[in-house]
Amino acid sequence: MEILQEVSASLVKIKNKKPLVHHITNYVTVNDCANITLAIGASPVMADDIEEVEEMVSYAAALVLNIGTLNSRSIASMLAVGKKAKANGIPIVFDPVGVGATALRTATAKRIVEEVAPSVIRGNMSEIKLIAGMNANIKGVDSIADEVDGEQVACRLSQKLGCVIAITGKQDIIAQGESVCRIDNGHPLLSQVTGTGCMATSLTACYCGATDDWFTGAVAGVMTMGLAGELAQQSLQPGEGIGTFRMRLFDAVSFMTPEVIKKGGKVTYA
Amino acid sequence: MEILQEVSASLVKIKNKKPLVHHITNYVTVNDCANITLAIGASPVMADDIEEVEEMVSYAAALVLNIGTLNSRSIASMLAVGKKAKANGIPIVFDPVGVGATALRTATAKRIVEEVAPSVIRGNMSEIKLIAGMNANIKGVDSIADEVDGEQVACRLSQKLGCVIAITGKQDIIAQGESVCRIDNGHPLLSQVTGTGCMATSLTACYCGATDDWFTGAVAGVMTMGLAGELAQQSLQPGEGIGTFRMRLFDAVSFMTPEVIKKGGKVTYA
Amino acid sequence: MEILQEVSASLVKIKNKKPLVHHITNYVTVNDCANITLAIGASPVMADDIEEVEEMVSYAAALVLNIGTLNSRSIASMLAVGKKAKANGIPIVFDPVGVGATALRTATAKRIVEEVAPSVIRGNMSEIKLIAGMNANIKGVDSIADEVDGEQVACRLSQKLGCVIAITGKQDIIAQGESVCRIDNGHPLLSQVTGTGCMATSLTACYCGATDDWFTGAVAGVMTMGLAGELAQQSLQPGEGIGTFRMRLFDAVSFMTPEVIKKGGKVTYA
Repeated sequence: MEILQEVSASLVKIKNKKPLVHHITNYVTVNDCANITLAIGASPVMADDIEEVEEMVSYAAALVLNIGTLNSRSIASMLAVGKKAKANGIPIVFDPVGVGATALRTATAKRIVEEVAPSVIRGNMSEIKLIAGMNANIKGVDSIADEVDGEQVACRLSQKLGCVIAITGKQDIIAQGESVCRIDNGHPLLSQVTGTGCMATSLTACYCGATDDWFTGAVAGVMTMGLAGELAQQSLQPGEGIGTFRMRLFDAVSFMTPEVIKKGGKVTYA
Repeated sequence: MEILQEVSASLVKIKNKKPLVHHITNYVTVNDCANITLAIGASPVMADDIEEVEEMVSYAAALVLNIGTLNSRSIASMLAVGKKAKANGIPIVFDPVGVGATALRTATAKRIVEEVAPSVIRGNMSEIKLIAGMNANIKGVDSIADEVDGEQVACRLSQKLGCVIAITGKQDIIAQGESVCRIDNGHPLLSQVTGTGCMATSLTACYCGATDDWFTGAVAGVMTMGLAGELAQQSLQPGEGIGTFRMRLFDAVSFMTPEVIKKGGKVTYA
Repeated sequence: MEILQEVSASLVKIKNKKPLVHHITNYVTVNDCANITLAIGASPVMADDIEEVEEMVSYAAALVLNIGTLNSRSIASMLAVGKKAKANGIPIVFDPVGVGATALRTATAKRIVEEVAPSVIRGNMSEIKLIAGMNANIKGVDSIADEVDGEQVACRLSQKLGCVIAITGKQDIIAQGESVCRIDNGHPLLSQVTGTGCMATSLTACYCGATDDWFTGAVAGVMTMGLAGELAQQSLQPGEGIGTFRMRLFDAVSFMTPEVIKKGGKVTYA
């Protein structure tokens, strides 16, 4: 399948380029995000002070904005660094954690979408629907969020915002304009470990930092996390549970190769 | 034993209800607290900005306040969210990490005890004695902290504050009013891993979020951590040390069942 | 070799004294720093609020200042606590993470070097060269950073600042005045895990908190991390990758003994 070939090629590019991925992310899963970035072969840097973020991002190949534990200080930094990244032409991957749960998250997500214009937005179905609905209200049109079909939501939101939309769940949906595909990798245990969504976002940024094709980058990032979940689960011996599974996710990502992707990747186009 | 039956029933309730547990906690062990909450079958959310905490806690079944790395920003959020949780009638589990070590911690703990009135306070003996002494001074009575017997300290402080007191140590003491029991689960290795106290607090909040009986919730939370420590230690092979032990704690909590609790729980009433 | 004897003696002192090591460090690897401190037998405390840091450090045997995710709030706390630690005569180990990458980091490192006068500075070659160059500019002399030889950079910077300089890399260099040695422990996998530099800094502080000889403390901290990397790598079975390696680092540090150090330590004097 052609997309698996492209994902594989992007993985090779990560190994060669070792892209620096600047994160402003939450303090719950930040260590996991740094380690998964290293495991795939990229290089993480975390910096969130308003006085240094624009300078730091100037060295980066990609930027992650994750609002998992946002606060007034980090929000200002995210907006500033996002604009700088945009000006520098590097990809910005936005993870709208918990958008819709509080007015602060929704308002912040709205500002990031409008002022920063992310390259990729990765969230679960309810987060992406919230972004779609928010956007509808902003623009005075009928809400995309009312669409019942995930692929339609993703495609229409992608077209409206001009970015890649990645919805992760039992089946993942990646859309860019008219192009949309579904990924059937993953394992239910992934939802029992904190940060697997955040790590999928970080991996997406690693791939996007190594290739100009951000649709492929999003497919690759989400698929890598799903495949790692499958491989980690398969490695479990009797008596090994969620703690061991979590550790093996990093093992699996560090062992990711074009062969593993071509053998295990499950993508279907709509 | 009846209490083990109740603890087991509470565990089943967690699995069924998947209570959302809002944490404002320290950045040292926050990832562990999130993962232990998931491992037992509940759902964690971490949010600490004053602009969103009251809204976020409105979805929660329980609240954790942990002052391990407190600062002026988080203190204000803890007081605001604590009052909101109280108004909403959800249990508040307070972990007064390091109270007595600095004036800031002592003053903050005093404000949380007086203004928020936690449902459960979990700490080690010196932390609980400090709370007891502080309270004594506040109320102008003889200091509970002078009691030499842990059970007496716990019972009298529980009666005074109208909350459950959980003292963890070699032997754990849980008290509510006249009721007091001792738990003999646990393993010395638990003290060689950071966050095992914080995790016991988070587990207590998971149980309290699933049952109206917060005494049982505290017994269950503390016992689950102790049992996990025993099981993790028993699983160690030659050459496996504290890093492996730490990982296995999460395995053990994810495998916790009514059968494990009934077989391994060691509770005695005074 | 005499230095291995001294390192071994310092390890025994840690086990006996259990020194309290106060950290102001980054939120990416703070959990790892706490756990490595416990694994070697010392006791960690993390506190960064300006209202409590001076009081907290008064109980400590050593202080770590790590600017990995610095911000205006933590910078003020680092300067205040550093001066207090200096006044109290306890060792201060400074980790200038990313100095030179941004003006904020460089200015902060400069203030810490000038106002706090750390006992040990541990960084990679580019970080230490940046400190050396900065210092040159400050003092109006030719830049030490222009020296091509790592040992010369380390020795001259040590003499200028009156502190121990530890440069970690493929080969580690530890210098104090005229004394300089190289350590050949370590494994390339260490660079694929976040926080191994931060942990070497924390271990150095643990040793320095247990002995008055901070040169030995730095040799011991850096060697312990390198040896742990070797032992963790040797323990890997087929199919085990970077996640397992990371966990085993903590196992290896918890099993560190004088015998392990004497058998595996590789130090050569210039």
